[in-house]
Amino acid sequence: MSLSTQPYKGTRDFYPADMRIQQWMFNQMRAAVSRYGYQEYDGPMLEPFELYAAKSGEEIVNQQLYWLMDRGERKMAVRPEMTPTLARMVAGKIHELPKPIRWFSIPNLWRYERPQRGRLREHWQLNVDVLGGDRLLADAEILKLAFDLMKAFGGEKVVSLRVNNRKLIDHFFKNTLGLSAEAALQVTKALDARAKIGEEAYSEWLNKIGVDVSKRDQMETFFHSDFAAIQKLVSCDGVTELTQLFELLEQSGIRQGKEITFDPMIMRGLDYYTGTVFELYDTSPENRRAMFGGGRYDNLVGLFGNHTLSGVGFGMGDVTLRHFLETHKLLPEFESSTDVFVSLPKIENRALAETIAANLREKGLRVITPLEVGSFGSQLKLATKHEARFVILFAETELERGAVLVKDLKTGQQVEVKIEEIGSFQGFSLLRSFNH
Amino acid sequence: MSLSTQPYKGTRDFYPADMRIQQWMFNQMRAAVSRYGYQEYDGPMLEPFELYAAKSGEEIVNQQLYWLMDRGERKMAVRPEMTPTLARMVAGKIHELPKPIRWFSIPNLWRYERPQRGRLREHWQLNVDVLGGDRLLADAEILKLAFDLMKAFGGEKVVSLRVNNRKLIDHFFKNTLGLSAEAALQVTKALDARAKIGEEAYSEWLNKIGVDVSKRDQMETFFHSDFAAIQKLVSCDGVTELTQLFELLEQSGIRQGKEITFDPMIMRGLDYYTGTVFELYDTSPENRRAMFGGGRYDNLVGLFGNHTLSGVGFGMGDVTLRHFLETHKLLPEFESSTDVFVSLPKIENRALAETIAANLREKGLRVITPLEVGSFGSQLKLATKHEARFVILFAETELERGAVLVKDLKTGQQVEVKIEEIGSFQGFSLLRSFNH
Repeated sequence: MSLSTQPYKGTRDFYPADMRIQQWMFNQMRAAVSRYGYQEYDGPMLEPFELYAAKSGEEIVNQQLYWLMDRGERKMAVRPEMTPTLARMVAGKIHELPKPIRWFSIPNLWRYERPQRGRLREHWQLNVDVLGGDRLLADAEILKLAFDLMKAFGGEKVVSLRVNNRKLIDHFFKNTLGLSAEAALQVTKALDARAKIGEEAYSEWLNKIGVDVSKRDQMETFFHSDFAAIQKLVSCDGVTELTQLFELLEQSGIRQGKEITFDPMIMRGLDYYTGTVFELYDTSPENRRAMFGGGRYDNLVGLFGNHTLSGVGFGMGDVTLRHFLETHKLLPEFESSTDVFVSLPKIENRALAETIAANLREKGLRVITPLEVGSFGSQLKLATKHEARFVILFAETELERGAVLVKDLKTGQQVEVKIEEIGSFQGFSLLRSFNH
Repeated sequence: MSLSTQPYKGTRDFYPADMRIQQWMFNQMRAAVSRYGYQEYDGPMLEPFELYAAKSGEEIVNQQLYWLMDRGERKMAVRPEMTPTLARMVAGKIHELPKPIRWFSIPNLWRYERPQRGRLREHWQLNVDVLGGDRLLADAEILKLAFDLMKAFGGEKVVSLRVNNRKLIDHFFKNTLGLSAEAALQVTKALDARAKIGEEAYSEWLNKIGVDVSKRDQMETFFHSDFAAIQKLVSCDGVTELTQLFELLEQSGIRQGKEITFDPMIMRGLDYYTGTVFELYDTSPENRRAMFGGGRYDNLVGLFGNHTLSGVGFGMGDVTLRHFLETHKLLPEFESSTDVFVSLPKIENRALAETIAANLREKGLRVITPLEVGSFGSQLKLATKHEARFVILFAETELERGAVLVKDLKTGQQVEVKIEEIGSFQGFSLLRSFNH
């Protein structure tokens, strides 16, 4: 019986064409985030199970975590998210690290999920966090950065940021509606499911939680309010923070009602976040959904001792991003991975072919030399298959003059170049990988 | 009880300073290998257990493999090596992929090991393989590439390639000494252990295998021969191949006795390789050991059906490489991750600070804006802490003239620059990240 050539369900093989896109996306992320002075970090793929048991959501730990016992009876998990590793690393050098800490990472993460569009068992996720500093200034920086990240991909025109504040939501559920924390959690679940289960089931659910008709009216008003209405309707820290945040963002060119909108429905679960919460949406009709989100959390490092450090951050997945870039045709045309194909018509030409190849590689060019001797025609075919831009051909007449033929496969133009001048041939110097 | 901040035994956290080195090493690898037209690929971290059970060595599968049962009762392994994934992916597109296939990858790999110098539980490994093509031409390309890889790190003067051929070893054990395959395997183990266990135990071991004194003399001669002596002593395919390989390498500037040496002791286990085998050594006295090795294998894709494709490749680990670069002082001085620090003396300056920051970021510069308002002195201190090259200061007199102060923290020089001209300030254009 032979083994399957398929990758494990919910994971992907990256053949060169896909790997090129993946690496390009990662490099764009790195460049965009680096322009804000953020530094890259990484940690191990396996972390102690307890790191997630303590803080990650129940669904993750009980249903989605990949874990194993190592040969020393240590229970280890394949990381399902990066934040616990970030917390551990920051806590480990809490006194040495200059604050604010601006870090990013592009880890691969694992969750046992039923594979479906945009949800895989293995995916990569850009994580960006800032820890310390003035909270609203940090929130504003992260939101601006998130927007600029989409700009780096050419997508700033087709996305919108939606923002809310957990203090406002908490105030509304607790003070306005008088709900317990548990009831509030149930209400958010009902709201989440509303579109799917229909109005009737939704009403029944609210009844069961004990949300009466008058409260339901208040909810309808609240969740359909714009920010001006909320400012009149509610007075609490959440509104104050949002007001200030919008002012700070305006200074950074992120205008309320344009690049960013208030959205009372943005909650991102009730456990984790404590202040600003946000999501970034694709505005195209065929893909109207959250691409990524994040927010402010209170104390990242509490699990590791008596330190306090709050932060704000977000995580953007590679699957969603690639889908977005494809939808909006924002992926570039990738150039071939071969600049020059040095042919090998006879084994006697090999010493010269190697000398030329070495010479061009020293200039930074990506050069292929064939691993079979072959006729003029077969070598041209091979060069085309490799998508080489130039091919170097050896022909008796030119060789006698100490020269070779350089054929540009894009223009079809063919010129004779002296062997000792090959490294400074004009055509090569126009290639992107050429070191000037 | 609080959780530990230490990473799992045998693994590493990559704080920004280490991540920078890691990324630099990977980028140098990518650049060096790309110049030979090799393309990057990757596969999932988890692979079916059977993929390793079939082909990886017994030690790996029984003692070193990390594996788990997923929630669908599928036995999955954390990849301990990349070749099985390469084999699976190549087999999956065997008919579509143009041959020869020149691929590389930089995966992280896991093995349960007793952590010791240079051996960790998680490490990264550059894998380079070429599949198809004329075997000796491919072997020569891989050896030349391995050498050039070290050259890309500035290490070509302190390494030496050592090469052998498994056909020669097999011929010697089988035809010259008349040993069975099992006895030959035992002999290689005894040879491996010789320095450690001493001559007496080594002799006893050989006795036990049934290698008598006359055979032992033949072994002494064989394993102390240079290639000229071997050519006189033995006649077999292995010697023919080595002779041709040395000729091909000479054409590529890799000279026998200089950059590459014949070494009959290079065997790399007896299971896997079938032709050329090699190792690259650090020649410095304090670190005289194999940095990496590889060789030719017969049929990569046999497990996946009735295809045949042979190849040659090697794997180089990040831990060994970094140790090598440190030993020989080949790591560069890394530049700071901040180009410009835009200060924030008063909150009233923020709109201007944001405009300037955005302007400079568009030029590609890495710009930090503080997340706290602070005095002139405290902001200068913060800028220094971030290792910024330039700091932009707002002072009343200059602001009234529509200008700011730009201080070069390296030279101490401070100049007044008009706000609208800040993007074209001469000093910034000298920074590496500036887009011209």
